Amino acid sequence: MEFTRLAETRQSTRKFTGEAVDREQLNRCLKAAWLAPSANNSQPWSFVVVDDPKIKEQVTRETYSQLISFNKFATGAGAIVVLVIEKPKLISQIGGSIKKKEFSLIDIGIAAEHFCLQATEEGLGTCILGWFNEAPIKSLLHIPSSRNIGLLIAVGHPSDSTIREKKRKPWDQFCSFNQYGK
Amino acid sequence: MEFTRLAETRQSTRKFTGEAVDREQLNRCLKAAWLAPSANNSQPWSFVVVDDPKIKEQVTRETYSQLISFNKFATGAGAIVVLVIEKPKLISQIGGSIKKKEFSLIDIGIAAEHFCLQATEEGLGTCILGWFNEAPIKSLLHIPSSRNIGLLIAVGHPSDSTIREKKRKPWDQFCSFNQYGK
Repeated sequence: MEFTRLAETRQSTRKFTGEAVDREQLNRCLKAAWLAPSANNSQPWSFVVVDDPKIKEQVTRETYSQLISFNKFATGAGAIVVLVIEKPKLISQIGGSIKKKEFSLIDIGIAAEHFCLQATEEGLGTCILGWFNEAPIKSLLHIPSSRNIGLLIAVGHPSDSTIREKKRKPWDQFCSFNQYGK
Repeated sequence: MEFTRLAETRQSTRKFTGEAVDREQLNRCLKAAWLAPSANNSQPWSFVVVDDPKIKEQVTRETYSQLISFNKFATGAGAIVVLVIEKPKLISQIGGSIKKKEFSLIDIGIAAEHFCLQATEEGLGTCILGWFNEAPIKSLLHIPSSRNIGLLIAVGHPSDSTIREKKRKPWDQFCSFNQYGK
């Protein structure tokens, strides 16, 4: 699919059929993420794909509460992908520290989006989740305490394949040439 | 182009011909970035594309020094894109603050990569730069002092179109199913 069309087709899916996702499809999404660029090629990530129904249920239960229920839809996803932040190379750590920028977060955003774009090409739906209880998920998946989870991706078969129109800020607030805001 | 192929084709370009980049091509890359997802659809970014040769020279001069010269190649790029971090929506700010996560950095990584992937489809080369002197670039482009620059993208015509093989960590260190590292 032409890239702009792929970017238009990718959308946050919040209604899944509950069906499992084929491992071959998941592996192709992982492959796309594996190819993602990162600062100094540090690849400061590892991906844990949770598709075992019982573990998946335990993980999704940590993405919502009675009070904050907006992620409850994730229970219908075929898999939950957990992006673990791994230590970047020393040069990235030093650079990030001098420039006060956590390059790893930029990097995991890129890798996550590669996963989601391939999923779109596979006809799957995805939603990136930034809100979750980190400690119990780390414990469930045996993630070392020294690591942090960057984000989760819910991936599955969408109940509705209608492509919604994207709501984005006006073009002239989005970009300019040679001067800010002009 | 099929997405995995596009991800394989995208590579960091560090040798440019020095030619200008067509505004229509730049606008298609911007369109792809405009379509990028973000936490709560906050779109915490604006893009300043610097293609005026004089201003571009002034900006690129702030990406390297005598001591740290690895970004000097950027002088050959047809344009330098400056990603300004804009304030996210209040809900993202609160969520990020509670979860101690700067969602904006994840978001600008995604938007930057959309730009780079479309550039790849256009036959252009890109390189994301995380190392630059922020204050003088903000001053040059009249970026308000309240804003920060997330990253720069050098974009231009590559001198060499050979696709290098990607060096990535071993697959079993990259991903696992249902348990960390298994």
